Amino acid sequence: MNMQEATSIMKADSYKMAALSEDTRNNILVHVKDALIAHKDEIFAANAKDMAAAEENGIAASVKKRLKFDEHKLADVTNGIDELIKLPDPVGQIQLKRELDEGLVLQRVSCPIGVIGIIFEARPDALVQISSLCIKSGNCAVLKGGKETANTNKALFDVIYSTAVANGAPEGCMLQASQHNEIDELLSCNKSVDLLIPRGSNAFVQYIMNNTKIPVMGHADGICHTYIDKDADIEKAIPIIIDAKTQYTAACNATETLLVHRDVAKEMLPVMAKALKKHGVKLRGTAEAAEIINQAERNMSSHNVFEIMGDDDFNTEYLDLVLSVKIVNNVQEAISHINHFGSHHTDCIVTENNETAALFMQLVDSAGVYQNCSTRFADGFRYGFGAEVGISTSKIHARGPVGLEGLVTYKYKLYGHGQIVDDYATGKKQFHFKDL
Amino acid sequence: MNMQEATSIMKADSYKMAALSEDTRNNILVHVKDALIAHKDEIFAANAKDMAAAEENGIAASVKKRLKFDEHKLADVTNGIDELIKLPDPVGQIQLKRELDEGLVLQRVSCPIGVIGIIFEARPDALVQISSLCIKSGNCAVLKGGKETANTNKALFDVIYSTAVANGAPEGCMLQASQHNEIDELLSCNKSVDLLIPRGSNAFVQYIMNNTKIPVMGHADGICHTYIDKDADIEKAIPIIIDAKTQYTAACNATETLLVHRDVAKEMLPVMAKALKKHGVKLRGTAEAAEIINQAERNMSSHNVFEIMGDDDFNTEYLDLVLSVKIVNNVQEAISHINHFGSHHTDCIVTENNETAALFMQLVDSAGVYQNCSTRFADGFRYGFGAEVGISTSKIHARGPVGLEGLVTYKYKLYGHGQIVDDYATGKKQFHFKDL
Repeated sequence: MNMQEATSIMKADSYKMAALSEDTRNNILVHVKDALIAHKDEIFAANAKDMAAAEENGIAASVKKRLKFDEHKLADVTNGIDELIKLPDPVGQIQLKRELDEGLVLQRVSCPIGVIGIIFEARPDALVQISSLCIKSGNCAVLKGGKETANTNKALFDVIYSTAVANGAPEGCMLQASQHNEIDELLSCNKSVDLLIPRGSNAFVQYIMNNTKIPVMGHADGICHTYIDKDADIEKAIPIIIDAKTQYTAACNATETLLVHRDVAKEMLPVMAKALKKHGVKLRGTAEAAEIINQAERNMSSHNVFEIMGDDDFNTEYLDLVLSVKIVNNVQEAISHINHFGSHHTDCIVTENNETAALFMQLVDSAGVYQNCSTRFADGFRYGFGAEVGISTSKIHARGPVGLEGLVTYKYKLYGHGQIVDDYATGKKQFHFKDL
Repeated sequence: MNMQEATSIMKADSYKMAALSEDTRNNILVHVKDALIAHKDEIFAANAKDMAAAEENGIAASVKKRLKFDEHKLADVTNGIDELIKLPDPVGQIQLKRELDEGLVLQRVSCPIGVIGIIFEARPDALVQISSLCIKSGNCAVLKGGKETANTNKALFDVIYSTAVANGAPEGCMLQASQHNEIDELLSCNKSVDLLIPRGSNAFVQYIMNNTKIPVMGHADGICHTYIDKDADIEKAIPIIIDAKTQYTAACNATETLLVHRDVAKEMLPVMAKALKKHGVKLRGTAEAAEIINQAERNMSSHNVFEIMGDDDFNTEYLDLVLSVKIVNNVQEAISHINHFGSHHTDCIVTENNETAALFMQLVDSAGVYQNCSTRFADGFRYGFGAEVGISTSKIHARGPVGLEGLVTYKYKLYGHGQIVDDYATGKKQFHFKDL
């Protein structure tokens, strides 16, 4: 069966999936958790194959850490399922209840989106989290994980899918794509797939966004900024910028550009440069930023390698121990720079001046705007969403870290007793709009 | 200035527009209302030109009614502005407030989307409503109305825009496109325009959806259904179907297909056919529906023209006094038919059986699902939203009639005191997630 046929059947079944009661969906999650534990030996064996292949292919140790699925990761995902079960049902929530006229009652009720296609990186725990979120929210899902964890993904998927179906989910409610060419097939399924959530490299996500008519939720790049205001507390600024740049450089919420207010640049930049250097961070920046830092370095008889950047060169996502540095004249210039060069992901101001912070947080057009904390906090778990399917930089539908809420839509239910529009159009009757 | 340049400037100014206070935005609306009244003579004179051109071009009377902008329409739009002023501010609403850890507080706050492009039909009142909604929600807007009302639109736009700027809105916050080729230019402005809302013919909206990377909100077709269940009350069913089909045939929420439960088809179909015929409705349908109606007609020595349709011919939006008729075996078949052939706009079940209605309303995958009332109720005004920018059949972002809520997004604001992620990653600190 090709992807068009498979998703077309899934679409037809998605109404059954959407109709599962909260109890059934939570009960499936309980059984999925138990089944993952019961089948852990098979899952670990499958993971051993993936790890052996990674070893053979000389994959970096840091990446192998993500591929590994062991007792520790199993405990993480089963704890995650427990948390998810406890979360309130995202489906069937009455968001509005209004009497339009006597005996004519409108309700807006949350409901699953339908069929969601999720393409994610090589991380077996991601497969468990994503499929659990789809079960909890009553959505059917096409899952395509990274090829480096193909064996682990297959073992996990088989356990999750068979357990779901055995406990009341409709057959065909989940589908695992394993071939790379199936991604292109999936992109063409705009009649059956309601939403695509791609995770991965900038180029990959851009490719998805440019090659499908299906709505896409996610982000291509993550060019995040930390702006050190003239009223910044340096004691806070240094740990924040170190964390934002170095805590996990490959993350989309790592800071790529440091903006510093001119009034404090001479004082703060050399101290920061020193602290960042200790963490192995290579600085690049405008000529004037370089001059300030190099001047200080020369005074200390040190030699820092500082690459001069052009003014228009601030749109690179390094995902590495590299940081762009620029001096700005005021908060307005910082805001303009961020809105122009940023990716509308997450940006931070370090300042003790709450008025300046309020301006920054109102005018910076990003999914996350922070005062005095690391940009690395932009994450569904850290926001208390239990889990996330991705982080959206779109302003349409869902923005920022997306948990269960981004996987539901709503419908309007109108209950009448034979009412017709003509009576209202001719003035025979009037609406009275009373929220119930 | 071309559209790319103009929208790029608008984008940069959109942050100023977004920052206007509620008082400023409402005050602008008050002045817009007064200015429309003060300048009514110029507006009516401009409209007289459009009406003369319509006369010359032999435009149908029903269409001319929509082009006309007189005292009555002026009163309608100024009343609409009054209603809009009274509505709660859609911007700055705190949707979530959560302490992640001591001194680390997350807020989710609604904010304007930014730059919205709206392409709408030749109706001068639509220009006033749409620009008022954008002002109220703090959005910049590119407006392109139908060419048949070009003079009226220009007069209205000039009054609204100059009044807005005179009362605190940033220059360039609104832009009127008047040339048809500007639509294609607008479609390419995906760097500056956040959302497109096209209104118009199926083919036109499809064209927009297929030719832009900008998210599109709206609907191409409106194939709405009314299903007469076996437990329907015929006294309700007949006025509902008459209203749904004939009250305004050109509307997207008019019913195009009548489904009837087999158990009541012989009893109800002939009565319905008779009633519909009185209203000039031409029936088409399956052979068995035709047989039932023709049998009854023969008994009455009448000759009804009933065109036999193929089973797969149910996806035409007539927008005319034509109705497709099909007999179904049960509510499940009605649901499947609607989900397969419908446009996920608005569909109704006529039944006294609330369990059957609940099933229908849960499983029909449409923006509006109704029990015992006309599909023509699908409208922002009738839902009490004050006004609408359009009706969305997408499941992403906004669904159904879209008022102010569909014109805002949100951002996450995180307030800290120097918190870094590493402390939580290493277990030195723990999140405690407390909703405030």
